[in-house]
Amino acid sequence: MKIKLPGQVEIQEVVLRDGIQNEKKIIPTQAKIDLIGKLVSCGVRRIEVSSFVNPRLVPQMADAEDLWSGLVRYKDVILSALILSRGGMERAVKCGVGRVGIFVSASETHSMRNSRRTVGEALSEALMLISEAKSQGVSVRAGVMNAFGCAYEGVVPADKVIELCRRLCGAGPDELCLADTSGLGDPRLIRDTISRLRKVRMKTALPGLSLHLHNTRDRGLANLYAALEEGVCIFDASLGGLGGCPFIEGARGNIATEDAVSVLHDMGIATGIDLERLVQTSLEFEKILGKPFPAMVPHLGPCRS
Amino acid sequence: MKIKLPGQVEIQEVVLRDGIQNEKKIIPTQAKIDLIGKLVSCGVRRIEVSSFVNPRLVPQMADAEDLWSGLVRYKDVILSALILSRGGMERAVKCGVGRVGIFVSASETHSMRNSRRTVGEALSEALMLISEAKSQGVSVRAGVMNAFGCAYEGVVPADKVIELCRRLCGAGPDELCLADTSGLGDPRLIRDTISRLRKVRMKTALPGLSLHLHNTRDRGLANLYAALEEGVCIFDASLGGLGGCPFIEGARGNIATEDAVSVLHDMGIATGIDLERLVQTSLEFEKILGKPFPAMVPHLGPCRS
Repeated sequence: MKIKLPGQVEIQEVVLRDGIQNEKKIIPTQAKIDLIGKLVSCGVRRIEVSSFVNPRLVPQMADAEDLWSGLVRYKDVILSALILSRGGMERAVKCGVGRVGIFVSASETHSMRNSRRTVGEALSEALMLISEAKSQGVSVRAGVMNAFGCAYEGVVPADKVIELCRRLCGAGPDELCLADTSGLGDPRLIRDTISRLRKVRMKTALPGLSLHLHNTRDRGLANLYAALEEGVCIFDASLGGLGGCPFIEGARGNIATEDAVSVLHDMGIATGIDLERLVQTSLEFEKILGKPFPAMVPHLGPCRS
Repeated sequence: MKIKLPGQVEIQEVVLRDGIQNEKKIIPTQAKIDLIGKLVSCGVRRIEVSSFVNPRLVPQMADAEDLWSGLVRYKDVILSALILSRGGMERAVKCGVGRVGIFVSASETHSMRNSRRTVGEALSEALMLISEAKSQGVSVRAGVMNAFGCAYEGVVPADKVIELCRRLCGAGPDELCLADTSGLGDPRLIRDTISRLRKVRMKTALPGLSLHLHNTRDRGLANLYAALEEGVCIFDASLGGLGGCPFIEGARGNIATEDAVSVLHDMGIATGIDLERLVQTSLEFEKILGKPFPAMVPHLGPCRS
């Protein structure tokens, strides 16, 4: 049997948002801008640059305005920001952000802890924000957090995830994202959920589907592979494998861009990314952050061939 | 499309062989015997207990004779040892070992460095050892190392791997094992190789197929999942994720038994292993070895449900 996988995959680099948002060491704005330049020169074509959130709660993101005003706008590179509220949306629009991420959690407990809203309330707010963004000409990635399980609640019913997707898609986002926020997804669940999602009748066509995978329990690349078999070809990844779950010493974060690109290239799937340059960029950023990254490939050589 | 995966998987625990063979801290024989007892009480039904190799080269394995003479022989539990030579075979038979592992490398460079033999010479020796074992009533797992790539040579042609399997199977082993010794396999290659292997005409029927996966580049569980899709249902794993590649600080070793069992259970695949007890056993052994294990699940809680 011939295995069908996409010939090409797009990586959205999230190190500057999910990757470092919980790091205590504050990265200077200029170092962030430099890193974005280097990532672009490695061939990365999508970068989540920041979030517009409460600077007291997430000090690492406090320079969002400065960052966006200092940024080079590269041709053919999508720069985006995460927003959680109307206030964040207004700030992003003022900064001329062309693309925003808007997420709802599929878990009541996580939703209350993360946004002090029930899932229903968060969904209403998200739908409003999506419409608002679209009316301002801002492109939108809408997503569901904890789509494959919740650290607080355990199982999250796939029905609930699919219903949230259906509702979000009704507002006409440009892309849909399923996030394995708690790193509890498994390859079978990922395949099942995506396969079911494709069969759901929506108001509009299902927009491009992307996955945001955490490597918490070391399942990140297994879940990536399972999603490839379902035809998914947009994945978030974080340089060095930073982010994800900052509370446990040595815990793995997001899937590492280097490790993901390495396995994709070995499978003959193009990413447009120069892996050797990316490894160099990772090693340099590791020095700036001053702590060892969970990614393996930078210390082992890139890949088989 | 319904995803077909095996309903049940057998785990061969290799922490006492591949897991600790390169650890400097020598584990006392009694601690090894105690660990075997605990693993059995967790439900593990296959354990690679030691190798019969040169004690000067691998001091951790120097107690093989003492270990086998002190071991409880549990009903329904397969205890095995790895052997590399006729001398090792004789020692194993004297100890009453009921099952041995006999491996050949698919890479010339690795074969020369590991055994000072060409692949052809190593194959002849292996065929002789398999016959010898069978004639003594010892059960055999025959295997190919570096079946999915080589740290020295890069790509290892699948044709070469398949031809080695065909030759090994001609000697009538009870099980065949493909080992990703360099941790360079990828899910597509694993599926392709297994799928091709199934189509090869052999003298005898293809015996049970098992996989020995390293997590060097974080691909271990992705490769395990890909093999499940090909119907493989016997996997080596090492408690704590020990072993594999001891030369890099923080490098990942074999796939971690805890992490593998956790994802298998979340996918509804039975292993017969009590994960909570296994985690307890891992945390205790981590204290004995005195270094943090790469496995994630022991520090995060077992799984989704």
